[in-house]
Amino acid sequence: MTEQKATNITWHDGDVTRADRNKLLGQKGATIWFTGLSGSGKSTVAVALEQALFARNKLVYRLDGDNVRHGINKNLGFSAEDRAENIRRIGEIAKLFVDAGVIALSSFVSPYRTDRDLVRAMHAESDMDFIEVYVDVPLAVAEERDPKGLYKKARAGEIPNFTGISDPYEAPETPELVLKSHEMSLEEEVDAVIALLQQRGILPA
Amino acid sequence: MTEQKATNITWHDGDVTRADRNKLLGQKGATIWFTGLSGSGKSTVAVALEQALFARNKLVYRLDGDNVRHGINKNLGFSAEDRAENIRRIGEIAKLFVDAGVIALSSFVSPYRTDRDLVRAMHAESDMDFIEVYVDVPLAVAEERDPKGLYKKARAGEIPNFTGISDPYEAPETPELVLKSHEMSLEEEVDAVIALLQQRGILPA
Repeated sequence: MTEQKATNITWHDGDVTRADRNKLLGQKGATIWFTGLSGSGKSTVAVALEQALFARNKLVYRLDGDNVRHGINKNLGFSAEDRAENIRRIGEIAKLFVDAGVIALSSFVSPYRTDRDLVRAMHAESDMDFIEVYVDVPLAVAEERDPKGLYKKARAGEIPNFTGISDPYEAPETPELVLKSHEMSLEEEVDAVIALLQQRGILPA
Repeated sequence: MTEQKATNITWHDGDVTRADRNKLLGQKGATIWFTGLSGSGKSTVAVALEQALFARNKLVYRLDGDNVRHGINKNLGFSAEDRAENIRRIGEIAKLFVDAGVIALSSFVSPYRTDRDLVRAMHAESDMDFIEVYVDVPLAVAEERDPKGLYKKARAGEIPNFTGISDPYEAPETPELVLKSHEMSLEEEVDAVIALLQQRGILPA
């Protein structure tokens, strides 16, 4: 046991750090947090950004309803308390990815300012980049798109507390970026995010 | 909007997959789940393994009490229910890392077979590698080491439900690997894990 303890000390000296992982990956881990109405185009731009970054050999991972709501957060419903806990957990998971050196993309409606500000604050605490991207389209545009038929159901009263219809969407006051997906091409949206990531040193210029 | 939707289809065709990320990283994402008594040497071997893998330019990330219990799981205590939820969430987070292509190392006591088997099953469901490593030392050895002074406190009745003293440790029946850290050098332990990862195709041979 004495031998092992001595060995431990040697090994522990060289703990792998966040900076080491960033260097290995040639990028800086960061959270890109897309927020906006259902149908605003958050997932569309997140998917396109993921592809554009991966094409540059960057490691990027997308957190969305498919892998979060059906996995770690499957024990959460849609009460006010559960919605807040949903966003808190996503924020904490994003931080773990940032620590691992990964560029984490989050695309959830995340309608409440308090919840998003909590996630921003937890990143700041750990000196991590949090890029809030407001995908800003008028409600009428999102409702006309209605890709999942949710607005129709909400209008029919079949979905209670639906953001934009029967529950508020609190727009970010000072997001890092605003994307008006009804006035921009997808390429323009992706280019705008990438330019910002380069400015911030998250991607090499 | 019509234009954007058309563009979407093109972009979506090339979704980045788990296989793509594995290829970029030159490894296969997998979960290495260390289990054993407090003081058995789980964290020691996880830290040393992390260093050895990183030295080979592999992306590895360690989940432990520091980054999990103080972050995403800080709203969980030590009741039976909370302990189970703690392990479930860690398992789900590990899966997200595996999906991202990362080799995730988990070092928690995780004393209950049911909880570990749930994590194993959730990996199997998604066709992900789950390597259970039992760090197996006699209780007397762990208690003599007592690196955090926890056994002393547990014996004094200051910590209720302490694994090995007042709460059971259910040893794995068919773990992928057993490490007797009191009979092996740290180098031997790390080499044994790496050999297994090569055998499984998680690391290139």
